[in-house]
Amino acid sequence: MKLLKLIPAAVALAMLPTFGFAQEADTTPPMEEIGFILTTFMFIVTGVLVFWMAAGFAMLEAGLVRSKNVTMQLMKNMALFGLASLLYYAIGYNLMYPDDGWTIDGVIGAFAAASLEPVGLVGAEPDLTYASDGSDFFFQLMFAAATASIVSGALAERIKLWPFLIFVIVLVGAIYPIQASWKWGGGFLEEMGFLDFAGSTVVHSVGGWAALTGAIILGPRIGKYKNGKVHPFPGSNLTLATLGTFILWMGWFGFNGGSQLYMDTAGNVADISRILANTNTAAAGGAIAALVLTQVLYKKPDLTMVLNGALAGLVSITAEPLTPSLGAASLIGAVGGVIVVFAVPMLDKMKIDDVVGAIPVHLIAGIWGTLAVVLTNPEAVLMVQIKSIVIVGGFVVVTSAVLWLLLKAILGIRVDPEAEINGLDMAELGMEAYPEFHQG
Amino acid sequence: MKLLKLIPAAVALAMLPTFGFAQEADTTPPMEEIGFILTTFMFIVTGVLVFWMAAGFAMLEAGLVRSKNVTMQLMKNMALFGLASLLYYAIGYNLMYPDDGWTIDGVIGAFAAASLEPVGLVGAEPDLTYASDGSDFFFQLMFAAATASIVSGALAERIKLWPFLIFVIVLVGAIYPIQASWKWGGGFLEEMGFLDFAGSTVVHSVGGWAALTGAIILGPRIGKYKNGKVHPFPGSNLTLATLGTFILWMGWFGFNGGSQLYMDTAGNVADISRILANTNTAAAGGAIAALVLTQVLYKKPDLTMVLNGALAGLVSITAEPLTPSLGAASLIGAVGGVIVVFAVPMLDKMKIDDVVGAIPVHLIAGIWGTLAVVLTNPEAVLMVQIKSIVIVGGFVVVTSAVLWLLLKAILGIRVDPEAEINGLDMAELGMEAYPEFHQG
Amino acid sequence: MKLLKLIPAAVALAMLPTFGFAQEADTTPPMEEIGFILTTFMFIVTGVLVFWMAAGFAMLEAGLVRSKNVTMQLMKNMALFGLASLLYYAIGYNLMYPDDGWTIDGVIGAFAAASLEPVGLVGAEPDLTYASDGSDFFFQLMFAAATASIVSGALAERIKLWPFLIFVIVLVGAIYPIQASWKWGGGFLEEMGFLDFAGSTVVHSVGGWAALTGAIILGPRIGKYKNGKVHPFPGSNLTLATLGTFILWMGWFGFNGGSQLYMDTAGNVADISRILANTNTAAAGGAIAALVLTQVLYKKPDLTMVLNGALAGLVSITAEPLTPSLGAASLIGAVGGVIVVFAVPMLDKMKIDDVVGAIPVHLIAGIWGTLAVVLTNPEAVLMVQIKSIVIVGGFVVVTSAVLWLLLKAILGIRVDPEAEINGLDMAELGMEAYPEFHQG
Repeated sequence: MKLLKLIPAAVALAMLPTFGFAQEADTTPPMEEIGFILTTFMFIVTGVLVFWMAAGFAMLEAGLVRSKNVTMQLMKNMALFGLASLLYYAIGYNLMYPDDGWTIDGVIGAFAAASLEPVGLVGAEPDLTYASDGSDFFFQLMFAAATASIVSGALAERIKLWPFLIFVIVLVGAIYPIQASWKWGGGFLEEMGFLDFAGSTVVHSVGGWAALTGAIILGPRIGKYKNGKVHPFPGSNLTLATLGTFILWMGWFGFNGGSQLYMDTAGNVADISRILANTNTAAAGGAIAALVLTQVLYKKPDLTMVLNGALAGLVSITAEPLTPSLGAASLIGAVGGVIVVFAVPMLDKMKIDDVVGAIPVHLIAGIWGTLAVVLTNPEAVLMVQIKSIVIVGGFVVVTSAVLWLLLKAILGIRVDPEAEINGLDMAELGMEAYPEFHQG
Repeated sequence: MKLLKLIPAAVALAMLPTFGFAQEADTTPPMEEIGFILTTFMFIVTGVLVFWMAAGFAMLEAGLVRSKNVTMQLMKNMALFGLASLLYYAIGYNLMYPDDGWTIDGVIGAFAAASLEPVGLVGAEPDLTYASDGSDFFFQLMFAAATASIVSGALAERIKLWPFLIFVIVLVGAIYPIQASWKWGGGFLEEMGFLDFAGSTVVHSVGGWAALTGAIILGPRIGKYKNGKVHPFPGSNLTLATLGTFILWMGWFGFNGGSQLYMDTAGNVADISRILANTNTAAAGGAIAALVLTQVLYKKPDLTMVLNGALAGLVSITAEPLTPSLGAASLIGAVGGVIVVFAVPMLDKMKIDDVVGAIPVHLIAGIWGTLAVVLTNPEAVLMVQIKSIVIVGGFVVVTSAVLWLLLKAILGIRVDPEAEINGLDMAELGMEAYPEFHQG
Repeated sequence: MKLLKLIPAAVALAMLPTFGFAQEADTTPPMEEIGFILTTFMFIVTGVLVFWMAAGFAMLEAGLVRSKNVTMQLMKNMALFGLASLLYYAIGYNLMYPDDGWTIDGVIGAFAAASLEPVGLVGAEPDLTYASDGSDFFFQLMFAAATASIVSGALAERIKLWPFLIFVIVLVGAIYPIQASWKWGGGFLEEMGFLDFAGSTVVHSVGGWAALTGAIILGPRIGKYKNGKVHPFPGSNLTLATLGTFILWMGWFGFNGGSQLYMDTAGNVADISRILANTNTAAAGGAIAALVLTQVLYKKPDLTMVLNGALAGLVSITAEPLTPSLGAASLIGAVGGVIVVFAVPMLDKMKIDDVVGAIPVHLIAGIWGTLAVVLTNPEAVLMVQIKSIVIVGGFVVVTSAVLWLLLKAILGIRVDPEAEINGLDMAELGMEAYPEFHQG
């Protein structure tokens, strides 16, 4: 017998005279708790998978920048996740679900013990028809962090650390949760009938719009567009970029699967499994479409396009991973892959310098995915989808632009040219990612 | 309250007048659904772990090839997984379970909404004694993809991309599911009493036989066997190879654990936990056996042997991870580790060039593991195990050989010597994995 | 229908005339089994996450050593995990839970089928109020292995392989389980009222004390402290170190979450989710504290400090991840991050050479976390916490010192200076981790 297990119950007993749902000696959960347990555990598992996407973004981006900027890219990813974790509980979560009774406690009592349910649910009257506040918070937090991760890749190799982190604070603390509340907090987009299952628009396009606005205001990297030509800056480590893609693919099973929000019936768990099968198939469709298309167009298949094709397939299916058949999912994903292959050079033509391809993957494929809902879900109305995309896009572009311009005016957002040419790692951090490997 | 959660139910209500198992407002699942929910969620979790093995193979192989071939190895692994995902739903899954009512719908209706259960199980009569089709498909798909991953490592550094991918298509679409149906589809090997819990033979030896046939037909890398000597080509990145091994080890918990196929009783979940403990112990046995043996034989322990020893331990326990004690599991795994240490130089003597050691790990340890079932499972009959190994091996060798020879005759399977010497990355893909690191 | 699923039941039927809990045709688990199934599956999932920490330690350490010692660091991590897996079942698990009926069977029957529950629980009378032995063993094993992983980083770049592995054998086989039994095996620290939820003291400080003792006895690396100055030896691969940190962060959700030990009620699963939210928040607090503090102190934020800050935040919350609010958790973690920033140079001043910062992260933050329990848990008594820290520390320091000194006297624990300067990889293993990349 492991005595540790007695501690929480002992604490509970010591703290309060009565308790409803604290752990008991026998392991027959009351029937009415089973759905709550299953859904909560589902959020725990899928939330951990979405957490893992933070590592995926870090590896993808570290692999696609030049080695002189790798430490900075790692730093940004680590710091943005840390800040997102703090900001989302302090502000974001409450902004996003304004009608929640939990809100007021949260705002005034973020540092009080009651900000999540009490230990052992002692004395609480939890909503047994859903899941624990802790699991819901944990899961939702990871979505907010993912939004910020999208931005860091596009603006790599030239943006200053702190202005970027201030942008992340506002994005996670205000921009993301405000627009997310319009849909997932029961706001006007929800009432309008907007459908966005796991966030092609609410998460991915939001990150994409913020990245696009930032990329335009920040300008391209020195030497990227010279004498009317596009100069490729190859990523320094494609094994990392591939690892990052596999991690994101894996994490996406949690991202889309957990967005079913319930695992309390056979129907719900079957839906989750269907979502995973569709999510995987869409990623495969995107990867293979990019493989075939780059083979046909360039005679040599392009690994970075295949990686981004897989990610674009994932973004494309995110707005509706449940209703498509496997065949439809593969086609929806494949269109995402095609989008990437055409959008990457198109952005370059417009001299919008997106280091990792985040704008094609998250914004353009995100729009496609949101529109594609109408193809398989009879509830979806095309005009509502378009209107919602425009409203969210407009809001994010305006707020991001104001914020970027403010940051530019007050702090400056771009490192000086010397630092950019020498690399942000030595200039800003004094630390190289690969100090022993000679660089070409 | 999160409104997103109402969508699927709303869709369900809108689409059909009656529904049996769609989500309901209260979270007390009907008693008869609990086993279905638990088993389905088990497949979801273990299926995600087996998916993760695709990343493990990619990292292992990218770490063990020379840096000039890394991008190609990453490309092959990404592409083979994408193709496997598409082929297995279009053809493989139906071939593998021919008696399933799902089959006909699947073949003629792969693009129809009904290819997995309907959303919310609306109007469906699901088999509540097992798990959802979606979860079963998701889990089984990952096994088919793993089979293909095994082949890519052995043939690295010299095979052309597209002929390899065509081989993968036929392997996942036909060779793998046909022989798997003999055992797991209720075919004649099953009726004969062949025991192979999670696929030492059905998965690992199949990949191994296809790799062996390919390696013989393809021939060794230029310079590998020169003047009667074996020239080692050290892997370019052992951190990646180690990461890949840890990923595979982790994924194997899903591979073997999920193969219990049920988590609806105390007995089943206890079996799954027992399987995980045995799987871990066998991997440890294989790693430590290879560590000690290379120390004794060569005075210097060999990391790549230790990594492959762990993997061979995992393959060895895969045919029967349930019945052995922890002690027996460690010994079964240790024999796998010993096999690797002796089989790698043996293959080199036969001038069979297996870049990553896939043939010792997956084929020879796979045969060992299949035979070792008789040591701990009284149901197993040695002659039946041998006969089944031979039948599966014969089938895969013949079909693979025909396919490799056809591909050789029609397309050619080997890059030209100049491309091989310069590396497949620049020659075939025009992209280096580590463009900034000087190479020796 | 998948026939494989019938095998275990068939085996069970063949082996024994009666069976209580083996799998049945219908999927309605008896009510009294549901808690057992849920808790066991929770251990399976969290145990896999804690396993994953072994890869995290390997990547973190491989990234923070110089490239000439990377293969050795990978070897040590792979070997220590393999040895821990074997030793913990052969000896450690039984030592740790001396009152368990399972003990005697375990000691004399480690190689018998009964060392975990019988297959399908056939004929067993399992304790349905907890979880399966297999899942408990699997989960607990990973904690023992983590303890050993902590040691390997601190002593990197100069310790011999085999003396280190012998230390691991004794640590996992005796030192760790003996002291763990005082708390988690129901021993005198438990009776005294010592609180250490998931092991800030029982796991992390134990690894830390063993590392500290070893670092002192082993002495610093050649050239580290020369002419009264500290010479930094930058890590060779910060992407790996960052990946390792993300992996550890992810694995920690299993480490702390699984330590709830029950998932059979709404209260327990809500607690687990609360633990995950707190664990994540503490890591974020540690990372951001280190980020801000290194920016303020050194004007350049230090990535390795941020990584270790996150880890120190995780260690700090491990003694009590359940009772703090999110705000308190972030502050507890932040103190951990501050500790790292000040303790790393302090150790250097004392000429204690800790290659990866394991002593600040696991020992000092572990002590802080154990003391911090009194801040949020009214059950905790400060003097009891202090006394327990001292007792555990004293025991580990004395036993470790004796063992290190014995190993030094008998085998020698340090490689010769030439091997150290040339790197352990070529000298001890004859194999480089990155053979193709020129080294500076």
